[in-house]
Amino acid sequence: MSVGTLTGVGLGPGDPDLLTVKAVRALEATHVVSYFAKSGRRGNARTIADRWMPPGATELPLLYPVTVEIRFDHADYVSALSAFYAESTELLAGHLAAGRDVALLCEGDPLFYGSFMHLYVRLRERFPCRIVPGVTGMSGCWTAAGEPMTWGDDVLTVVPGTLPPEALRTRFLAADAAVVMKLGRNLPKVRAALADAGLLERALYVERGTMAAEVVMPLVDKRDDDAPYFSVVLVPGQGRRP
Amino acid sequence: MSVGTLTGVGLGPGDPDLLTVKAVRALEATHVVSYFAKSGRRGNARTIADRWMPPGATELPLLYPVTVEIRFDHADYVSALSAFYAESTELLAGHLAAGRDVALLCEGDPLFYGSFMHLYVRLRERFPCRIVPGVTGMSGCWTAAGEPMTWGDDVLTVVPGTLPPEALRTRFLAADAAVVMKLGRNLPKVRAALADAGLLERALYVERGTMAAEVVMPLVDKRDDDAPYFSVVLVPGQGRRP
Repeated sequence: MSVGTLTGVGLGPGDPDLLTVKAVRALEATHVVSYFAKSGRRGNARTIADRWMPPGATELPLLYPVTVEIRFDHADYVSALSAFYAESTELLAGHLAAGRDVALLCEGDPLFYGSFMHLYVRLRERFPCRIVPGVTGMSGCWTAAGEPMTWGDDVLTVVPGTLPPEALRTRFLAADAAVVMKLGRNLPKVRAALADAGLLERALYVERGTMAAEVVMPLVDKRDDDAPYFSVVLVPGQGRRP
Repeated sequence: MSVGTLTGVGLGPGDPDLLTVKAVRALEATHVVSYFAKSGRRGNARTIADRWMPPGATELPLLYPVTVEIRFDHADYVSALSAFYAESTELLAGHLAAGRDVALLCEGDPLFYGSFMHLYVRLRERFPCRIVPGVTGMSGCWTAAGEPMTWGDDVLTVVPGTLPPEALRTRFLAADAAVVMKLGRNLPKVRAALADAGLLERALYVERGTMAAEVVMPLVDKRDDDAPYFSVVLVPGQGRRP
């Protein structure tokens, strides 16, 4: 009996029609569909994939023991996540060893800040793996804003909002164009660093780009500090253009 | 009579199955399919879209007067390109004013270093415009390499290889993870700057990621300086991971 293949399936930024043809086919052909979610939730990945779920496939949700309740740099967070990834790896390995193909759903692109990567690096020496790239969340957001992001020689800097204030400021000062990911509770810190770097007036706030509840506004017009984890701030480039 | 809509259609990195479902539908529904190409060539965009071309649609190639024959910072280049974009704008405007929908093909993602943007900013005040995001060329390349690009707090820096040597070095010194676009004749300069910044050993060279003639190798193993314009260098991140 041959083993199954693990496929990381990029789902794109949220609109179900932004799956690639290859991603749709990968879902159609798989035995098991697995996805990360917060305990008690269905999860964004599973929701995006809803329209494309293969009838009769086994669903294997992987439920995070913690998300934002413990700080990511705390030892308890690291050990909880580490154990969770080890257990999830063995759940997938069980199916793969039994010859069942597993598609692991990934919001955006699997190899770009994706949870998929944690299982992929643990499984790629043991089983055949395949990756279907996806439209990134940030592409979905700049598409929602309708703003060209990078022109000519613009350098694009993609910055996690989780960085300390001084690191954010340094990155923004050097940026031609910037995307700030992982906003969530980091929004006030990000806003202050953008102001320090003189970029606040150029910044756009985008929430759920390409989804039904999409929000796009100049960051200066956003009066509150409520930002879902999958919101971003964009600073479009202003580079050379004939 | 109502006017037509301009749709920028992201084609993804090269594999025709990496068009999104939305992109395929946009092509099916359009009257005119337009695309950039070098004079005398069919062009990469048109080739990627081949499988999805709507029967009976009008094809409107936009042929670059120059590509790499004149340096991009030379006044002759700027004026030639400027005139070309103005003429191309009016060709598209003619169809749109006559009520015909135009799909403009874009390799990768339309708003990320895309030629599409030059016509979009000239037409978006005059006609309805719509954008279908695509998988970027760089996603296609790191998928081809099978390498996770960004972990945890990694900052990703996307750098055009066209920058001067000192600017490249400065960007590489500050990079957690890096993508170098627009390699072409800039490869020797990029290689030297990566070595100066201590990143050469971590760098991967990827050519035509996701296409039939795909090439992936450690950059240190690449002995020549021949790099097509749509090749990239990747420096995967090494950030925090439980």
